[in-house]
Amino acid sequence: MSALKNDRFLRALLRQPVDVTPVWMMRQAGRYLPEYRQTRARAGDFMALCKNPELACEVTLQPLDRFPLDAAILFSDILTIPDAMGLGLRFEQGEGPVFDRPVRSAADVKKLFVPDPEGELKYVMDAVRTIRRELNGRVPLIGFSGSPWTLATYMVEGGGSKDFAQVKAMMFDRPDLMHKLLDTVARSVTSYLNAQIAAGAQAVQIFDTWGGALTPRDYKEFSLRYMAQIVAGLTREAEGRRVPVILFTKGGGQWVEEMAATGCDAVGLDWTVDIGAVRRRVGAKVALQGNMDPSVLYASPARIRAEVETILASYGKGSGHVFNLGHGIHQHVAPEHAAAFVSAVHELSPKYHA
Amino acid sequence: MSALKNDRFLRALLRQPVDVTPVWMMRQAGRYLPEYRQTRARAGDFMALCKNPELACEVTLQPLDRFPLDAAILFSDILTIPDAMGLGLRFEQGEGPVFDRPVRSAADVKKLFVPDPEGELKYVMDAVRTIRRELNGRVPLIGFSGSPWTLATYMVEGGGSKDFAQVKAMMFDRPDLMHKLLDTVARSVTSYLNAQIAAGAQAVQIFDTWGGALTPRDYKEFSLRYMAQIVAGLTREAEGRRVPVILFTKGGGQWVEEMAATGCDAVGLDWTVDIGAVRRRVGAKVALQGNMDPSVLYASPARIRAEVETILASYGKGSGHVFNLGHGIHQHVAPEHAAAFVSAVHELSPKYHA
Repeated sequence: MSALKNDRFLRALLRQPVDVTPVWMMRQAGRYLPEYRQTRARAGDFMALCKNPELACEVTLQPLDRFPLDAAILFSDILTIPDAMGLGLRFEQGEGPVFDRPVRSAADVKKLFVPDPEGELKYVMDAVRTIRRELNGRVPLIGFSGSPWTLATYMVEGGGSKDFAQVKAMMFDRPDLMHKLLDTVARSVTSYLNAQIAAGAQAVQIFDTWGGALTPRDYKEFSLRYMAQIVAGLTREAEGRRVPVILFTKGGGQWVEEMAATGCDAVGLDWTVDIGAVRRRVGAKVALQGNMDPSVLYASPARIRAEVETILASYGKGSGHVFNLGHGIHQHVAPEHAAAFVSAVHELSPKYHA
Repeated sequence: MSALKNDRFLRALLRQPVDVTPVWMMRQAGRYLPEYRQTRARAGDFMALCKNPELACEVTLQPLDRFPLDAAILFSDILTIPDAMGLGLRFEQGEGPVFDRPVRSAADVKKLFVPDPEGELKYVMDAVRTIRRELNGRVPLIGFSGSPWTLATYMVEGGGSKDFAQVKAMMFDRPDLMHKLLDTVARSVTSYLNAQIAAGAQAVQIFDTWGGALTPRDYKEFSLRYMAQIVAGLTREAEGRRVPVILFTKGGGQWVEEMAATGCDAVGLDWTVDIGAVRRRVGAKVALQGNMDPSVLYASPARIRAEVETILASYGKGSGHVFNLGHGIHQHVAPEHAAAFVSAVHELSPKYHA
């Protein structure tokens, strides 16, 4: 593999000195880019795009060709694992993901298995290998997975949900079953992320989109516990470098101490917390990633720049900050606004690393 | 007006001794009740139901006839104020509220006015008077309003939203305009709630459903500030009793100190915080209302009872706790589960007041 030309992102995650604050955007390869919409139309549907390594590579690189981002992230979906478990994933127009065979009973849970990352999920590893080759050392490649709790919400509900009626009913009334399900998913995620690392992912992020829908007690028991199990099972070195692990729980700002205690290298933050205040709590243990409100990108470039400065100043001097949005970039954002965001981070941050 | 037979709710809000922990449910008059669905069908559509004082009274009382709740809450909608401002409110099937004339420009903001609570909004005051008469002192009646920020999101977006593109763009790029809008809404809410109190509301709650979508800085500047302005302008005594004010920001658990500092009597909590931990932070200043995950009502009555016990134990001994859900009751909950919840609170709480 070719030598890494820009390793700011990896260095910041390990709180090692950097020249400028590195930046990437969650969902940076996505619908706000016209070139993405073109490739997706060529692929047919969304899962066809995920399952085609050449096209997945193409959309992964698109934002890097537009913006001087400091990391690439594998283009894929968090639902690849339950899909590989045979739940029958479809994406319905306007409805989001749907599983034809949701997990509702003890028998359903018993049927779940750990998919072979180089078997059912080989298309993901092929995408990782293709992207690494095409990146050619430009920036590091991030691998990722959904958290067990987040995947469980889709698996049990059979799709997206507002109130999590089915999955919470199972969690409250059949905690034994829920733990069995989560353990199988956690072992699947561990194997999946280790395979991504073996295929070339240089950092990994676990997306816990729905952990924030839980009480503090339930979060620790049903979400964080399984992320900790994954962190403990991950390969932490590859190609002679440490492979950093980032945990991101949307709405998890109050639990950052507990998240840091899992042994992860960095915690992702949404915009509902002040990053400087969080750094004072856990900055000696982990790096922080975030945390601009993605809707700031609807404002003018001047206002975007001002918000970037506010967040940089809040984090303060020194390494350990990876700039990002607090959630995925919204589909109606103008690409020029994303450009203004990325350059603001690079232009305004050197003084914090002098 | 007839003497109040059950004043636990008002006493707990003022942290005065009670025999058992009082309980009510946000959205207790709602679609999970078959009798509500019948009345609504008779009314025609949702706003017709809100605008008919006799039918609004009927649905307000329905949950009280089923469950021994300790408070009634006016049946109405938070969007009555922008509707009275002439924005043209409609409820579209499956789409939620829609405003035909959203507020997008300086000219639109300039046209806004403080509606006359006994003029355009007289139907609400008539409902309050009718309900008070029909309650006949059974339990206290809660009046309510949306928070200025929450109302602004609907007024600017023209309906519900996921990413608040329009309202946040205005907030970020035209803070002057946003402040003018919020000030007009805050003056409207103050006048509206004072009229509800004059008409017979014995406590009032401000629902800040979308304050949690803001950064800490923006929350203080664009949501909390206007709730504080309202609290400062409210009539705090009527019929020889204090009229308690409850502030509820969904996702606002980290800002409870600042909320308490507004001078409100109680803060409502969603289920993402531990109520005992919050009590240790602010229990000497305000009462707390909450905070069971509404999805616990999808679980078995035994599990519901166990969760009630956990929350009672977390709050601990002494007054200052009004039991509630952390958000409105979901429409697919079985009424028997709501019954199990209410009786669990009454049956399990006496030991905390001995």
